[in-house]
Amino acid sequence: MVIGRQPVIEAIRSGKMLERIFLLRQAKGDPITRIRELAAEHRIPISLVPDARLDAMSRGNHQGCIALAGLVSYLDLQDLISFVQEQGRTPLFLMVDGVTDVRNIGAIARSAVCCGADALILPQKGVAALNEEAIKASAGALEHLQVCRVEGLVEAARTLHLNGIRILAAEKSSGPALYDCPLKDPLAVILGSEQLGIQAALLKISDGLFHIPMAGDFDSFNVSVAAGIILYEIQKQRGSAGPLS
Amino acid sequence: MVIGRQPVIEAIRSGKMLERIFLLRQAKGDPITRIRELAAEHRIPISLVPDARLDAMSRGNHQGCIALAGLVSYLDLQDLISFVQEQGRTPLFLMVDGVTDVRNIGAIARSAVCCGADALILPQKGVAALNEEAIKASAGALEHLQVCRVEGLVEAARTLHLNGIRILAAEKSSGPALYDCPLKDPLAVILGSEQLGIQAALLKISDGLFHIPMAGDFDSFNVSVAAGIILYEIQKQRGSAGPLS
Repeated sequence: MVIGRQPVIEAIRSGKMLERIFLLRQAKGDPITRIRELAAEHRIPISLVPDARLDAMSRGNHQGCIALAGLVSYLDLQDLISFVQEQGRTPLFLMVDGVTDVRNIGAIARSAVCCGADALILPQKGVAALNEEAIKASAGALEHLQVCRVEGLVEAARTLHLNGIRILAAEKSSGPALYDCPLKDPLAVILGSEQLGIQAALLKISDGLFHIPMAGDFDSFNVSVAAGIILYEIQKQRGSAGPLS
Repeated sequence: MVIGRQPVIEAIRSGKMLERIFLLRQAKGDPITRIRELAAEHRIPISLVPDARLDAMSRGNHQGCIALAGLVSYLDLQDLISFVQEQGRTPLFLMVDGVTDVRNIGAIARSAVCCGADALILPQKGVAALNEEAIKASAGALEHLQVCRVEGLVEAARTLHLNGIRILAAEKSSGPALYDCPLKDPLAVILGSEQLGIQAALLKISDGLFHIPMAGDFDSFNVSVAAGIILYEIQKQRGSAGPLS
């Protein structure tokens, strides 16, 4: 934790990774404005909270401002894409839209590392924090995997498109079956929220839908299981791991 | 909960599903002997606990004996196999060896229902309880799926073999890749514990090993993700869901 206005400003300026900044709901003044500007610039989420929440986090004089140091380093999306392309790899990204369960995020990261995906792309808001529980659920994978935190996934999708990366989305009963879907191109696959699925704006901008075949009409797969199945099929089609693929 | 010696005896006799019986560690006497006999006959696990544990569960006079009513109905393995065969289906069972996390068991059950597997086979000891948290993690699948609780998985494997069902096990770096493994026969697939994998005696009795291909050397998939991938590949090969499979 970084506690107090000036320490938080210094932490952001020095490039320290911050997971989230908690600001007193009614806090005002120049330092607070500066913190908001810096947070926007460095894409650090801000939560506005009551005094009691900050008091519960720290017994010291927090001045209405506490930041949580991040456990994961975040990369710029364009830098990441360029890096993957320069290495001669075929990009494979997972765009995580609203997955709020830390254990699901952890399991997704674990499968991503197992299957050689290049990175997770997460929006600033509406996804689970990459905290200690997520790292534990990932069996440590979150410490190996590259992660981009973007302002919004729709904007990120435009950047992906500009770089020639196709965006696919899994939707129940839509498009072809996963195994009938060509998956060898540079790809980003959208994973939707446990409750709400994928947001309409992202579905609209995506280049194709597919579904994971199901035997009956039951609900759907857990999102981390779905991610594992998709990554398995991509790896199989790309033939990076097996003699017959 | 069923509280007291005679009520527990009556509950077992009446065929009520019990998840587990808690007995006072030092309890003795005819009713206790009878409870142990009935529990063995009906394959209900017993936990020997100190007085304080029972007191914490019930304020009433528990007489050293409390049973938890089950949320899931258990079937006899041979009855289940016969039932599946009579329906003309190709059996597909998951043998769960030592998966101790209720959320993993829940997610496995959810994928099993999604992919049309016939049942979970669980040993009496060493796997997570099918409690409310497991049912929640299964998105309700545990209320639809058939479950066998067997005394031991090695003995269950013999019953499966006598019924012409092949037993396969996923092991890191062993056997062919999952997608090069023929999966159309009547099958039971063993899923191993999060920490310890599959017990040696079960591996020895199994008919084949396979591995889920991985891009690198990282750890392994979460067990519920691995189960989802295996079920996806089986469903694909059996062609129950897609035009090209």
